[in-house]
Amino acid sequence: MIRGLTKAGLGKIESDEQYITDAAKYGFQSVDLNPLSLVQQYGKEQAAHLLESNDIIIGSADFTVDWRNSEEQFREGLKSLVEMAEASASLNCFNCCTYVLPSTDQPAAPFMAAATRRLRLCADILGAYGMRLGLEFVGCHHLRTQWKNPFIWSVEDTLDWIETIHAPNVGLLVDSYHWHTLGLRTEEVLQLKKEQIVHVHINDAYNLPIEELLDNERLYPGEGVIDLSGFLKNLKAIGYTGVVAQEVLAPAPTLNSSELFAKSKEGFDSVFAAI
Amino acid sequence: MIRGLTKAGLGKIESDEQYITDAAKYGFQSVDLNPLSLVQQYGKEQAAHLLESNDIIIGSADFTVDWRNSEEQFREGLKSLVEMAEASASLNCFNCCTYVLPSTDQPAAPFMAAATRRLRLCADILGAYGMRLGLEFVGCHHLRTQWKNPFIWSVEDTLDWIETIHAPNVGLLVDSYHWHTLGLRTEEVLQLKKEQIVHVHINDAYNLPIEELLDNERLYPGEGVIDLSGFLKNLKAIGYTGVVAQEVLAPAPTLNSSELFAKSKEGFDSVFAAI
Amino acid sequence: MIRGLTKAGLGKIESDEQYITDAAKYGFQSVDLNPLSLVQQYGKEQAAHLLESNDIIIGSADFTVDWRNSEEQFREGLKSLVEMAEASASLNCFNCCTYVLPSTDQPAAPFMAAATRRLRLCADILGAYGMRLGLEFVGCHHLRTQWKNPFIWSVEDTLDWIETIHAPNVGLLVDSYHWHTLGLRTEEVLQLKKEQIVHVHINDAYNLPIEELLDNERLYPGEGVIDLSGFLKNLKAIGYTGVVAQEVLAPAPTLNSSELFAKSKEGFDSVFAAI
Amino acid sequence: MIRGLTKAGLGKIESDEQYITDAAKYGFQSVDLNPLSLVQQYGKEQAAHLLESNDIIIGSADFTVDWRNSEEQFREGLKSLVEMAEASASLNCFNCCTYVLPSTDQPAAPFMAAATRRLRLCADILGAYGMRLGLEFVGCHHLRTQWKNPFIWSVEDTLDWIETIHAPNVGLLVDSYHWHTLGLRTEEVLQLKKEQIVHVHINDAYNLPIEELLDNERLYPGEGVIDLSGFLKNLKAIGYTGVVAQEVLAPAPTLNSSELFAKSKEGFDSVFAAI
Repeated sequence: MIRGLTKAGLGKIESDEQYITDAAKYGFQSVDLNPLSLVQQYGKEQAAHLLESNDIIIGSADFTVDWRNSEEQFREGLKSLVEMAEASASLNCFNCCTYVLPSTDQPAAPFMAAATRRLRLCADILGAYGMRLGLEFVGCHHLRTQWKNPFIWSVEDTLDWIETIHAPNVGLLVDSYHWHTLGLRTEEVLQLKKEQIVHVHINDAYNLPIEELLDNERLYPGEGVIDLSGFLKNLKAIGYTGVVAQEVLAPAPTLNSSELFAKSKEGFDSVFAAI
Repeated sequence: MIRGLTKAGLGKIESDEQYITDAAKYGFQSVDLNPLSLVQQYGKEQAAHLLESNDIIIGSADFTVDWRNSEEQFREGLKSLVEMAEASASLNCFNCCTYVLPSTDQPAAPFMAAATRRLRLCADILGAYGMRLGLEFVGCHHLRTQWKNPFIWSVEDTLDWIETIHAPNVGLLVDSYHWHTLGLRTEEVLQLKKEQIVHVHINDAYNLPIEELLDNERLYPGEGVIDLSGFLKNLKAIGYTGVVAQEVLAPAPTLNSSELFAKSKEGFDSVFAAI
Repeated sequence: MIRGLTKAGLGKIESDEQYITDAAKYGFQSVDLNPLSLVQQYGKEQAAHLLESNDIIIGSADFTVDWRNSEEQFREGLKSLVEMAEASASLNCFNCCTYVLPSTDQPAAPFMAAATRRLRLCADILGAYGMRLGLEFVGCHHLRTQWKNPFIWSVEDTLDWIETIHAPNVGLLVDSYHWHTLGLRTEEVLQLKKEQIVHVHINDAYNLPIEELLDNERLYPGEGVIDLSGFLKNLKAIGYTGVVAQEVLAPAPTLNSSELFAKSKEGFDSVFAAI
Repeated sequence: MIRGLTKAGLGKIESDEQYITDAAKYGFQSVDLNPLSLVQQYGKEQAAHLLESNDIIIGSADFTVDWRNSEEQFREGLKSLVEMAEASASLNCFNCCTYVLPSTDQPAAPFMAAATRRLRLCADILGAYGMRLGLEFVGCHHLRTQWKNPFIWSVEDTLDWIETIHAPNVGLLVDSYHWHTLGLRTEEVLQLKKEQIVHVHINDAYNLPIEELLDNERLYPGEGVIDLSGFLKNLKAIGYTGVVAQEVLAPAPTLNSSELFAKSKEGFDSVFAAI
């Protein structure tokens, strides 16, 4: 498995260049970012060089299409989706992910119909570039009632939905925090098939009843109560060899960015040590 | 347009043979029924003869797949769907319809995902036989809250859903009663395209606020307050030339079946006269 | 039906502005063009004004994706497809067409697989903008052996293919010249359904055996042997109310552009007179 | 990996019961057969008992739909497909395979369109039962010109086609003999992904130029020139853990069925020994 980062949990990062070089410096092998903006900033060649010279790959490309609101807003994003896919594929990143909020202010049934139609089109566009789309189920209990109507949050419902979307390149983003808030044990990872997983996030949880865990108050791997070594061991057991990226959504940290990179490295060293 | 019947509103019908011959006798041109059971009762040849010798076509084939409950129940129906489609096509009926209840005891979003997947498969199977699938939106207000969670009922949401199902052979069953309970005027039929309509039901409504109209207390065409002539005129104006079938869901009638056929004929004569 | 033009047969047109104003001047109601380039030249507002002030609509938007060669070339066109669809929809044009050559230098079966996949994706992208995609079958006999392997050219095979593509918004572009070279009589138009037709081209043919008719030697409506009035009558009979656009592919004309507009008007006047 | 058998290469087998008990007796773990006919012969319960008591699973269910000829013949098979899928799933077999002949008497492009449409529908029906559909590419050179028009035979074209079929549950049946006749080395198995493979066949080839190898003159594993141990090693390396079934298509053998089971066991012992 590949040790990866997202920007969440790293404080203020000055630039994608700093992000990439620091990731390498602290022993990481991948970063999640927006490949289109990377290419727009540095040019395709320089962007590729930045990654290669640091032995860093892109773990997952940011998905910038707004599929949760109006048709107009959705269509607005399609153009950049094509550009993003092209940039991403040119940088050898073939994963792209979006999260699925567990409730919505829209009526749930028509929203599900619209979301299915929109994500299928996005998946098909991504498919033309050899890319996969990962859907991240979001388990946090407070978000299930944050908006008017419940949507979906369980692994089973997400897999069912993927079957409905019916594009061969759609799978799960499995996040250890959401896994935990769903009340799932790490052994239950063994019930997934490797090919169902597009991407993995890890981060840790406070020692609280899962009903009280907040989406935006996560801990660094190793700091909390989730058996992340077990989680990783079981991902390995089912043959998953892809990226495992830290995504610590949390209030503004007191440490600076370098300290946070170091802290992240430490966390990864500890949870990866046991697998 | 073709004057058609369903069994709803005709009292106790002894047999499909009586249904067909009486339909003809009272000036109707089509009946909705289960073509598979017709073929099983009479044999394919005799079933065809029964229809042809009475100048009756099948308006819409009964859809017997249970797509609203478990996967097991759904799969149970697939076998007979194939047989029904074969029987139906062999009798030159290429329409098949199901209704969409406006609420459900299941969580709405996963139910929408399952329903989309199931109806797409059914539509694709029907498509192999050249058949179309009509979805009947159900407007009655009391049914919107009959079960725990709202599903969909508007024309717009149903058309959106059809787009999501994404099979070229899915369209609407437009029922005048549901049209009325949605608060739509008959002129709004003009906003539909002929090819969006698979089948049409007509029946009439009591002079009550639409919120109070019950699904199971309908009137015969011409007995109530719906401008059915206008409804038909506008269907004709958009080029609809298919079946218009009466479907009077109502408490057990005091009249006998012959009287109800006669009453139905009268109603049709009156509302068709003006178009 | 709407009298339309394509640029083929109009000689040297200086600009889209001239194209539009001359179309109006000579009694036409629509032009086929590239809406993206129109918007890029004049801005969206001015483009809309140009059309509206001349009472001209866009009949069909040029389809600029290269779906006939490599995956790279195909992907290259996707970005502009999204932009084109946006421009087109903003100008109220919801049709887009591409032609299907009847032979190919690629092995026919894998090419059919690739073409199906690519056109489905294009259709789905267009569908997000409410647009339809018309496939033009090409009947000319010499083109059936122009390249190594036969592909498809008959109406039946094209409709079958559309069923395989399985996107609800794909239909036919029916061109009178190709209709004629397939040996079809104008009455056979009656076997089409209105909703199967996205767009119509008319142009006329020399009095030659259909096997000898060249794709690039067409005549103006009324100049040749095709019963274009019958063709139009039957389109009308099935309820087609869309655009009928002239597309006279022919060697460089001796007349100037104004004369060719006038000649086109004359042809349309004559063939439309009889319907 | 699971050691499996098909009936090809086992001489005259009296019954499915003999097939299953002998498979077990000679150390095999799976058999390919028609689960519907198994259930029809023995009843569901007894069929399940027959398999379980012998520790035998069904490797792949026979696919009995005729997707290569007319629409009528295709539709004829749909009914039994549903029944087969139900029987198969009830016996815990979730694989089903069909072979793709490398040439056809039908025009290649329309045949590809029809085949795509038909196999997608079959795959979707199978999908409702959790089943996958494996497509077997057929490399034999003589079959590429056996019928009028070339179809497809390469791994790449088959994978491309699977992408076009666009059902998430379609993959490859990889047969060592066809692999060999395509001129592929066993290391090239490493370029496949485990999840692309639904089923595997092994059998061996005479020491002849691959152009001369006949489809119906295969050898038992270990008897010929294919590096089957290498083939299996590389399947294992990519994580394949499914069934590897012998399928020795060959002229009528002189040995009796027991001797052929024994011979098959020997072959498997030898090629599996080295992995």
